[in-house]
Amino acid sequence: MEEQNNDSKGLSRRKVLIGTGALAAGAALTQLGGIIKPAQATGGKTEKWPWPYEKLDPAETAEICYNEWYRVFCGAAVINSIFSQLREKVGEPYTSFPSDAFVFLEGGQVGWGTICGSPAGANIVANLIIGPRIAGANEGHHMAADNMQWYSETALPTFTPKKRKISSTYPTTISESPLCHISVGKWMKAANKALKSPERKERCARVAASSAYHLVEMLNDWKDGKYESTSDFSCASENGITGQFNCTECHGDDVPQAPAMPKTKKS
Amino acid sequence: MEEQNNDSKGLSRRKVLIGTGALAAGAALTQLGGIIKPAQATGGKTEKWPWPYEKLDPAETAEICYNEWYRVFCGAAVINSIFSQLREKVGEPYTSFPSDAFVFLEGGQVGWGTICGSPAGANIVANLIIGPRIAGANEGHHMAADNMQWYSETALPTFTPKKRKISSTYPTTISESPLCHISVGKWMKAANKALKSPERKERCARVAASSAYHLVEMLNDWKDGKYESTSDFSCASENGITGQFNCTECHGDDVPQAPAMPKTKKS
Repeated sequence: MEEQNNDSKGLSRRKVLIGTGALAAGAALTQLGGIIKPAQATGGKTEKWPWPYEKLDPAETAEICYNEWYRVFCGAAVINSIFSQLREKVGEPYTSFPSDAFVFLEGGQVGWGTICGSPAGANIVANLIIGPRIAGANEGHHMAADNMQWYSETALPTFTPKKRKISSTYPTTISESPLCHISVGKWMKAANKALKSPERKERCARVAASSAYHLVEMLNDWKDGKYESTSDFSCASENGITGQFNCTECHGDDVPQAPAMPKTKKS
Repeated sequence: MEEQNNDSKGLSRRKVLIGTGALAAGAALTQLGGIIKPAQATGGKTEKWPWPYEKLDPAETAEICYNEWYRVFCGAAVINSIFSQLREKVGEPYTSFPSDAFVFLEGGQVGWGTICGSPAGANIVANLIIGPRIAGANEGHHMAADNMQWYSETALPTFTPKKRKISSTYPTTISESPLCHISVGKWMKAANKALKSPERKERCARVAASSAYHLVEMLNDWKDGKYESTSDFSCASENGITGQFNCTECHGDDVPQAPAMPKTKKS
């Protein structure tokens, strides 16, 4: 642990704790896994957090991400848009991170439509730079929750590249979910475009770019000690199960009740 | 690119191509992203594939994973169970990979119930070792599809650790999905246990261990040149959208039709 670096983030961490969303997300930490333990070294020489970070330009990062999408697709494009710059500005440990391996995040992991590669890639970047919650800081965890809520609630894409691959205009859509299947499905319905269409690919490239833009804004705030978590949702706290907030979209009016813990007897 | 190593996998790759599932999965490759391009170096010094791999004992790996779950939870436990051993046996590039950063995969990514951390972690391991499809080999991509189909169709957990944290017996369940929300939800219903219960945590620790066991079996086969992809599902090919195979579970009888590509006129 780099205690010195963690201490320098004291202001940021305090702000996280007093943020409205952070309270719910903090509650989720104990719901999910139980006891928060200090990190134990397992041998990874890059497992010292936070990684050195220099502020990046959100628009420039998004432009890189947009172009990288056409080479490595959503997840790896988000990672590479940030790490390619930090390799230049900082060097290690970014030079040792194999970003291109994350091509498989495409299509919600090799086409299975689970989490969209854009938030999946953004979550990886946030937690690589800031570190996992077991290492003593929770901002990476909170930033991942912020990513997914922002992605679910925002009319995407928000970013328009300078040099477009195709010039078509098309609708933006709000997914209400971080899942690829739901996000791309709602857009395909609104745009009446097929998965294989150039417009769908362009839309996904811009969604990745929009996600990279938003992530850099959060990371820059964190670097300046003024990051505040914006997420206000914890399915575990609210519903007793991991999940999203769009329960009725799959369950209709028949949302199941999760089994509850047995009530403890009063002594 | 380590062409020599790729060539040595010729037998394995040919077997993948003649496997029934590989044809569908191969079709998906072109459905999702379009053109497969050769890798372009972006500066990552560990982006040379495949990474050196030595065969591991599946049961020993699962035992490590089970215990690691109680420290770093599902996704990072799967990664660490394999990489901690390869750090000892091989060294770099495993020593430089920050496995603990992937704690955030817990609960389907910080509790949002998207992809279960066990297949998410397994997909990361397979694609780090074998490399992304843009680097010239498709086995990592296929292994990720195999992971998710196996996870969805198997009564989990399959692995029982030697030293159990709790001795309760409980049901196994088939999730029909790689999503945390659906997988843990079906188990909680069958077991009538809460998310916070020790039995639910024990179940998830064993699911992670089962996933690590299965992944090592595939990686060992790949090392021996006898890996064959078992997945036979491509939602993109079959339904024109990324997704899983349990359409009616969310959509009921009203499964939407994805927009199709315009038919090209015959010349």
